[in-house]
Amino acid sequence: MKEFSAGAKAAGKTVALVPTMGALHEGHLSLVDIAKKNADITVVSVFVNPTQFGPNEDFDKYPRQLAEDAAKCEARGVDVVFAPSASDIYAPDASTFVSEESISQNLCGKSRPKHFRGVTTVVTILFNIVKPDCAVFGEKDAQQVSIIERMVRDLFMDVKILRAPIVREESGLALSSRNKYMTQLERAGATRIRRALLAGKALVDSGGTNIDRIKALVINEVTDAKTRVVYVEVVDAKTSLPVTELKVGQCRISMAVWYGSTRLIDNIII
Amino acid sequence: MKEFSAGAKAAGKTVALVPTMGALHEGHLSLVDIAKKNADITVVSVFVNPTQFGPNEDFDKYPRQLAEDAAKCEARGVDVVFAPSASDIYAPDASTFVSEESISQNLCGKSRPKHFRGVTTVVTILFNIVKPDCAVFGEKDAQQVSIIERMVRDLFMDVKILRAPIVREESGLALSSRNKYMTQLERAGATRIRRALLAGKALVDSGGTNIDRIKALVINEVTDAKTRVVYVEVVDAKTSLPVTELKVGQCRISMAVWYGSTRLIDNIII
Repeated sequence: MKEFSAGAKAAGKTVALVPTMGALHEGHLSLVDIAKKNADITVVSVFVNPTQFGPNEDFDKYPRQLAEDAAKCEARGVDVVFAPSASDIYAPDASTFVSEESISQNLCGKSRPKHFRGVTTVVTILFNIVKPDCAVFGEKDAQQVSIIERMVRDLFMDVKILRAPIVREESGLALSSRNKYMTQLERAGATRIRRALLAGKALVDSGGTNIDRIKALVINEVTDAKTRVVYVEVVDAKTSLPVTELKVGQCRISMAVWYGSTRLIDNIII
Repeated sequence: MKEFSAGAKAAGKTVALVPTMGALHEGHLSLVDIAKKNADITVVSVFVNPTQFGPNEDFDKYPRQLAEDAAKCEARGVDVVFAPSASDIYAPDASTFVSEESISQNLCGKSRPKHFRGVTTVVTILFNIVKPDCAVFGEKDAQQVSIIERMVRDLFMDVKILRAPIVREESGLALSSRNKYMTQLERAGATRIRRALLAGKALVDSGGTNIDRIKALVINEVTDAKTRVVYVEVVDAKTSLPVTELKVGQCRISMAVWYGSTRLIDNIII
């Protein structure tokens, strides 16, 4: 991969990276489209990164389907699928970590304490191997994008971060590899996440500015027998840091819920 | 600096970086000589990095003499002196850190808890700005070199790390910018650090392999009324990790002592 990128650079080509954990869906492929518009060569990395999963999380059952992913990439015009093994990426005595310690403390960081450290470390490694001019991240993981942008700024990495809008099913459910864990009935029920976010936005659109009331409404709308709310927060749309005052159009409602035994996240600009 | 390096690379030149905190002495300049032998262009960074000093350490009194440093660099054939300000390097809300969490726990890491995190973070930033093909570090800070080598390996950084041997006064005292803190009398006394390390090596050369006895001898030899030993340890010469068994020629006695009000480090291969 390093040699390929060096060759591409030497030939004057620009490289875009789309980092993924595989189990590619139309959300990932929309990132590929953005990558292709912004660089000569598009690299999709497929790596289920062990260090971003907690001890009781779904690392083992996370879907792995490399042949199918590679076919989807090829059909979409991806130039390179980079699918290293865990031992390619991590030496047995690997002991270096990249951590972001402000944005990562909120939202998903509270319930997944080492998750973002795993993300920033592996993204740094992927950047150093692939050496992309730009990299595309989806806004479903809005906090993740904010953290990556902060990392790139703080460490002077020469990578332009591109944000891709959330892709949804017709039902409104945000596409996620983890949707596979749900039954049809659960997927139908999980559409209330999107409806709750839209209700929050409608409140703001009709003049509501009280953050507590927005949060309370979203929590109320999302709740049914299968829902367990991890958080509903109003944050700055760019940095994902908590806000105390609503600035219309510059904030985001971010939420995580367990729906049955599946942890889902979604967000909406307000 | 980024533009200069990009231009140099585009012209097919290689770049070597010598990261320093300034107050340059012959030790630093020996690193410059190695840099010049290994690359077309030599960059010396001069940056007294605030994040690698603890709250009660000598950040404020650390010697700053940029004009003198620049003159020394020019006389030695350095191509670029890169001397950013703290605000060039750190945004007010900087929150990203690079940390090595194994090697950094020992030796100086025990008494300077965030020191190496500051070092690995700033070296990453300097690497990302200067984009050197190689970088030179002095073996007086042997633990630091081991940590940098580990970081480069773990994060797949494309920088070759070159080690430079310790440069000493005729008295045996290892050159250090902190030697300036000492009176002539203290400097004379501090030469016992080198003598103690030589005594440790002599014990090994004469067949001694008991690590406790080596350490005890060195501690005994170094001790006088002005000495406070921070640590004396036998470590692996390459990784700086503790060893339980002596492998002759592959180990190092590393030590830190306060001599009067100056903290000094030194080491010797055994």
